[in-house]
Amino acid sequence: MADLIAELAGALGEANVLVSEQDQAPFLTDWLGKYRGAARAVIRPGSADDVAAAMRICARHGAPVVPQGGNTSMSGGATPDSSGTAIVLSLARLNRIRDIDTVSNTITVDAGVVLAKVQQAAQAAGHFFPLSLGAEGSCTIGGNLAANAGGVAVLRYGTMRELTLGLEVVLADGRIWDGLTALRKDNTGYALRDLFIGSEGTLGIITGAVLKLFARPHARASAFVAVENTAAALSLLAAVRDRCGDRLTAFEFMTGECLSLILRHIGDARLPLSAMPQAAVLIELSDQDDEPALRERLEAALAESIESGLVPDAAIAQDGTQAKAFWRIREGVSEALVREGKAAKHDVSMPVSAMADFVAAADIAVRTVAPGVRPIVFGHLGDGNLHYNLLPAEGQAPEAFAALAPELTRIVHDEIGRRRGSISAEHGIGQLRVSEMPLRKAPLELELMHQLKHLLDPAGLLNPGKLLPAATRN
Amino acid sequence: MADLIAELAGALGEANVLVSEQDQAPFLTDWLGKYRGAARAVIRPGSADDVAAAMRICARHGAPVVPQGGNTSMSGGATPDSSGTAIVLSLARLNRIRDIDTVSNTITVDAGVVLAKVQQAAQAAGHFFPLSLGAEGSCTIGGNLAANAGGVAVLRYGTMRELTLGLEVVLADGRIWDGLTALRKDNTGYALRDLFIGSEGTLGIITGAVLKLFARPHARASAFVAVENTAAALSLLAAVRDRCGDRLTAFEFMTGECLSLILRHIGDARLPLSAMPQAAVLIELSDQDDEPALRERLEAALAESIESGLVPDAAIAQDGTQAKAFWRIREGVSEALVREGKAAKHDVSMPVSAMADFVAAADIAVRTVAPGVRPIVFGHLGDGNLHYNLLPAEGQAPEAFAALAPELTRIVHDEIGRRRGSISAEHGIGQLRVSEMPLRKAPLELELMHQLKHLLDPAGLLNPGKLLPAATRN
Repeated sequence: MADLIAELAGALGEANVLVSEQDQAPFLTDWLGKYRGAARAVIRPGSADDVAAAMRICARHGAPVVPQGGNTSMSGGATPDSSGTAIVLSLARLNRIRDIDTVSNTITVDAGVVLAKVQQAAQAAGHFFPLSLGAEGSCTIGGNLAANAGGVAVLRYGTMRELTLGLEVVLADGRIWDGLTALRKDNTGYALRDLFIGSEGTLGIITGAVLKLFARPHARASAFVAVENTAAALSLLAAVRDRCGDRLTAFEFMTGECLSLILRHIGDARLPLSAMPQAAVLIELSDQDDEPALRERLEAALAESIESGLVPDAAIAQDGTQAKAFWRIREGVSEALVREGKAAKHDVSMPVSAMADFVAAADIAVRTVAPGVRPIVFGHLGDGNLHYNLLPAEGQAPEAFAALAPELTRIVHDEIGRRRGSISAEHGIGQLRVSEMPLRKAPLELELMHQLKHLLDPAGLLNPGKLLPAATRN
Repeated sequence: MADLIAELAGALGEANVLVSEQDQAPFLTDWLGKYRGAARAVIRPGSADDVAAAMRICARHGAPVVPQGGNTSMSGGATPDSSGTAIVLSLARLNRIRDIDTVSNTITVDAGVVLAKVQQAAQAAGHFFPLSLGAEGSCTIGGNLAANAGGVAVLRYGTMRELTLGLEVVLADGRIWDGLTALRKDNTGYALRDLFIGSEGTLGIITGAVLKLFARPHARASAFVAVENTAAALSLLAAVRDRCGDRLTAFEFMTGECLSLILRHIGDARLPLSAMPQAAVLIELSDQDDEPALRERLEAALAESIESGLVPDAAIAQDGTQAKAFWRIREGVSEALVREGKAAKHDVSMPVSAMADFVAAADIAVRTVAPGVRPIVFGHLGDGNLHYNLLPAEGQAPEAFAALAPELTRIVHDEIGRRRGSISAEHGIGQLRVSEMPLRKAPLELELMHQLKHLLDPAGLLNPGKLLPAATRN
């Protein structure tokens, strides 16, 4: 058998098979700098056919393949292990927008197209693609699909799964499944599409997708609202939803501790309220109305809640600049966390009705083990999704806190388990949570997942070590 | 091994194992009277544990099992074959609403609960469950899930798949997969849920589900609008969607021929326009607005289209009674078709932008083979879903037309294939379309589906002969 690298170079061209340390470097570390791996080569196919050819070669050689999009995984999902046996397959050159159909409201794209480019293309065509998240300037559609990305507009538009109509996927053996249909209804068999979405590159390599477009909202209205606690925020959510229906696009919660942290570290973040609240919510409506009408509706919804005592204080953005300032607070949270020190992070979800109880119980439980620990809690309240982060007690040595972190995670995830929640709402399992899968999934569920993995990737070549722990041999 | 029937009676109670012809009769014919089968027994388990016990017994005996909900399949999906070897498993006794969570906006139900009961329970709790279709008074949630039901509100709320959060499923070997979670975001592995939804009872038996609830719309507005043809209807769809966004709940299209047929056969259906149009659209908006504001918005959207010449005539319902009269026309179509004679029916979908071209091409193609054939076309335009039905030429003998029907279906489905459409948008494959699967699905797709079937039901006991043709042995 010819040499793996030579065969890949023959198929893709030498320039697209990176073997030097320097060329490979950007592909071998995740953007958080948490994981570092090694590869035999980084390959850069330019089309689905290229990907298929590369997969056939890798399959013949038994070489593991790690697909990589924008390399923005929050869970090490696109970083190879340290063995140096893997081929990292970058989708970056699959970067064409293949088609926009403004009658069908669909866009067909290569998997390597950056999310922001899809948003821009939709807008240029007078439409709207709603997926929106911090990494949108560098993450790719393929990665969004592999991780079933969420973000700040899930409340109204759903996750990436719900935004997708068709897929093109290269299987482990190099065959191409052409499921690139633009059908809003199709009841002719099993949902292959949904099997690949969210599978983190472990069942196949997504090379193209047909995505839904939406009517572009003509107006937005935003409010920054003080609330007493998580329970009050949930009551407010119900009130706003009843008044505003599907106009409610975002309902972002943060605790007072979270807010203080942001204001301390983010120079241009300003509190739009008269005093520091116990907690706050950033609300966004969007609609086909004109802006004053939408703002009026938001004011009316809040007026009710102010009158009833639910909301002690609120600011409504009078223009786009003010709205941007509200969002600057919310978006400053990641940066503020980084500046404050190393946090133990948890991306959890649960039934919406369990959230207030969860926060109360988790706060107590973590403090029992780590007195003075500082929970920094924010999240997408309407989705039942909280980012429950823990900072060391004031003055605690980072090493001492790091030693405690696994136990804190166990405690937080136990509280989630009690409420039938999820230990990864939107960041995926990747490498970060893979060892927890046997603890958090029922044995039957894990067995079915292993069987599906074995069915589609019998040699275990696709993104090994991610999502599913190595199967226990019987 | 003990007798199968005796074992089932031991597990479920004799009263829940029906063996007499008379007791079995209602379960052995589909409601359209198109399929008739036979069974060794009809069993009526009362819980998921009962279903699991029955499945274990049937698996031990190698007895095929045909799950049945409200027995309203449009494709013979719940009727056993004529061999008399099958056990029909009725879910009708699993009819509890287990929980309504008005904070999380979820409802948890047994699979045998009738759809209308779920709608009512949601309404009683001040919320809204949007799935709505003709059979809602007798179809069950389990059947809706098995068939990934569509209906008249898909445009806004999606199909059953998009309305579902969690599932409880009894596997072929009698184990219960408890995926009954109420999570709006959960990225911890493969989408088992979506594999079972739409699988027509061939991969497992759904016994319970967690469904999404929505804010109850406070107002509705309806219009009955004349248009020149399918292309004009699509332009109108774009205009209304841009003006009204997500308020657009239904956009139901019918050709003039379809409309005439309805008016001829349905005594209380009245045309709300001044003259018979080439084609018509029934538009419904719903929103949290008050009714006059919503009606005004609809009027404004239509005024534009009247001015531009797109819409020659339109009627806007001034109250609920008028709106009901509009819907009476749309809902009269099935009855009118039955009264007119036996039609060759097709439930097809395609990219929305392909619809006008499809209708024109199909009309010509079927007339070539069957001169004088009468296309009766209606459907959910925004979903790309048409019910493309063909009536015999005036005076043609039913037998002569019946002999032509398979060829007509081939022609219609060929036109769909050319547009990468689906031969079953919302009715499923069942028995009706199963022989077409090898023609209409790519070999790789069919192979993957067979492998999934084999994985979850290796003995082929679950609803045999539905959805997938018997696998070709290699």
